[in-house]
Amino acid sequence: MATSESCGREEKEMEESFPMTGGDGPHSYTKNSRQQRAAAASAKSMLTSGILENLVVEHSSKMFAIADLGCSTGPNTFIAMDNIIEAVTQKCKIKGYSSLPEFQVYFNDHVSNDFNILFANLPSDRKYFAFGVPGSFHGGLFPKASLNIIYSAFALHWLSRAPQELGDVNSPACNKGRIYYSNAPHEVGQAYSLQYAKDMESFLAARAEELAPGGLMIILMPGRPDGTLPSQNSLGPFIKPLESCLTDMVDEEIIRNHEIDSFNMPLYSPSMEELRKLIEKNGCFGIARLETLPPMSVSLPSVEECRSGFGSILRKHFRSEIIEQLFERYPAKIAGKPPIKASDGFTIGLFVILKRNV
Amino acid sequence: MATSESCGREEKEMEESFPMTGGDGPHSYTKNSRQQRAAAASAKSMLTSGILENLVVEHSSKMFAIADLGCSTGPNTFIAMDNIIEAVTQKCKIKGYSSLPEFQVYFNDHVSNDFNILFANLPSDRKYFAFGVPGSFHGGLFPKASLNIIYSAFALHWLSRAPQELGDVNSPACNKGRIYYSNAPHEVGQAYSLQYAKDMESFLAARAEELAPGGLMIILMPGRPDGTLPSQNSLGPFIKPLESCLTDMVDEEIIRNHEIDSFNMPLYSPSMEELRKLIEKNGCFGIARLETLPPMSVSLPSVEECRSGFGSILRKHFRSEIIEQLFERYPAKIAGKPPIKASDGFTIGLFVILKRNV
Repeated sequence: MATSESCGREEKEMEESFPMTGGDGPHSYTKNSRQQRAAAASAKSMLTSGILENLVVEHSSKMFAIADLGCSTGPNTFIAMDNIIEAVTQKCKIKGYSSLPEFQVYFNDHVSNDFNILFANLPSDRKYFAFGVPGSFHGGLFPKASLNIIYSAFALHWLSRAPQELGDVNSPACNKGRIYYSNAPHEVGQAYSLQYAKDMESFLAARAEELAPGGLMIILMPGRPDGTLPSQNSLGPFIKPLESCLTDMVDEEIIRNHEIDSFNMPLYSPSMEELRKLIEKNGCFGIARLETLPPMSVSLPSVEECRSGFGSILRKHFRSEIIEQLFERYPAKIAGKPPIKASDGFTIGLFVILKRNV
Repeated sequence: MATSESCGREEKEMEESFPMTGGDGPHSYTKNSRQQRAAAASAKSMLTSGILENLVVEHSSKMFAIADLGCSTGPNTFIAMDNIIEAVTQKCKIKGYSSLPEFQVYFNDHVSNDFNILFANLPSDRKYFAFGVPGSFHGGLFPKASLNIIYSAFALHWLSRAPQELGDVNSPACNKGRIYYSNAPHEVGQAYSLQYAKDMESFLAARAEELAPGGLMIILMPGRPDGTLPSQNSLGPFIKPLESCLTDMVDEEIIRNHEIDSFNMPLYSPSMEELRKLIEKNGCFGIARLETLPPMSVSLPSVEECRSGFGSILRKHFRSEIIEQLFERYPAKIAGKPPIKASDGFTIGLFVILKRNV
């Protein structure tokens, strides 16, 4: 007799977890996710037309399940779920269906995400049943073929972990004196690229199991232009001021060399070509859309935004006494710096719609 | 076109919410739910045989959804879910099915329940997909016919609110100088009984929608013997020491009269007869079992148990400065008091299995 195994959890527990800052204080993701919201808003019409053109919804469907993978604490996820439900409703109306399915929304993020604040802020006029799903999206989270739309916005650039060789002084991929791979030796970028490929492989395999035939997966994520090297990644400019604060603190002997050498941001932004190859290798999805988000200028993260996104991972690695100092230095690093423009050669956002092959 | 309305949430938001104490500190439910666990453990064989005898599970079932309504923060809910899955697995084996369904467990409690601690303690070797469901079980929580087993242990004695007339000095049901209905005028017990009937009506109506045909609802809850008055309720002796502390504090003019007059514990323990009538009135369920749990002696709640269960509701009503004093007095009230025995004339626990009529 086959048993329903422990649902991929062994895999998940080997990983690290770096949730956005919880609560609703000044450093919380709830209060510091304006830029992600603006990017998702710019994609609304692409999302609506993508659903209208590609979604298969049957007249007889009584339930319709949507999952937001890496939803964090809101409010961005609530806006996105409303947009998706609006588009599915529109599709049902166009088809002339006499009734709508009952919508279920599954809000997923790491176990350490602040689900209490997510639940406390659920819109009271929501038109769906709401569920929280704790766990890493690098493993399985749902029963087979149980989801109709999988959505993930600005979460899939988080790797399950930084490649381990980056911190190994004996490896050619050792990332000495840096926390990221911009301007790093080729081997460092390669190590990041390989980790990303491995993570996407397990991500796509899990989602292929969970998405019902005819269902859609909609992904918004940072990406870089085709034909560029990993080291020319689109996230580099946003991480540079933080790295610069840390290297200053190394120069001033506040942080020891080995502390910065062993810290690496587990983030990656693929090129479209790189992503296309990984999707094709998986083989379970057809690519309905793979394009760039409308170009927009993006400000460097404010100190609050930086803390909201990276506070958790920095506190985990560095001694707590240096964290306050770090963020005290940060505002001077970004003062007067202009926003990053798409025309600077960085593709800020990718928009992907995948269809589960029937 | 019919729209999927806002899923009964207007109703739910009118209610009050009194979650068990969260976190994992000394006053937490996680650390103070031993008695509830013992009662559920004593019911394990009834639960297993009840599932084996009554559950309809098809060979073709690929998914099997279980909900625990009023699950609090664990660990009791994890033990119960394992017991249920073990029994369903046993039933599948007896039937000779070649594969098991994929299990989903939906953990439900009020929005203000500590889901973060619930998720952090999810067993790593669990054989199910885990979801959190924030909201009151007095309203709808799930899509139609989406659940195979609904379980609720020691949660359904919580009313959606204390009857409002209890605090109204102009009502014959005004509950002056008491926080509960033991030894109260007939009208007070009646008001509680009516509120319970109203709450069970909405509870059963919601569950009738959500339970799949052939599915089971398993309820453990406090109850009193048939032929007794509401005022002879089984919870009275457990609340008496707390009431006694509060009335002492009124006598000493630490608490004002109106503060205690307007506070009433929103708890009720029905007789089997009373519960049977409400189930029959609803009409969607057949009663497979309605019996008492194995008799056991139950200690009066320790100060930690009392805080874990009632800390939230007391803090909501009384000035915070009296709460510490109240719990300082409490241990003296219970010192040397013997446990409540079933033979004292109180039926401590009811065990109910309902089958959704096909």
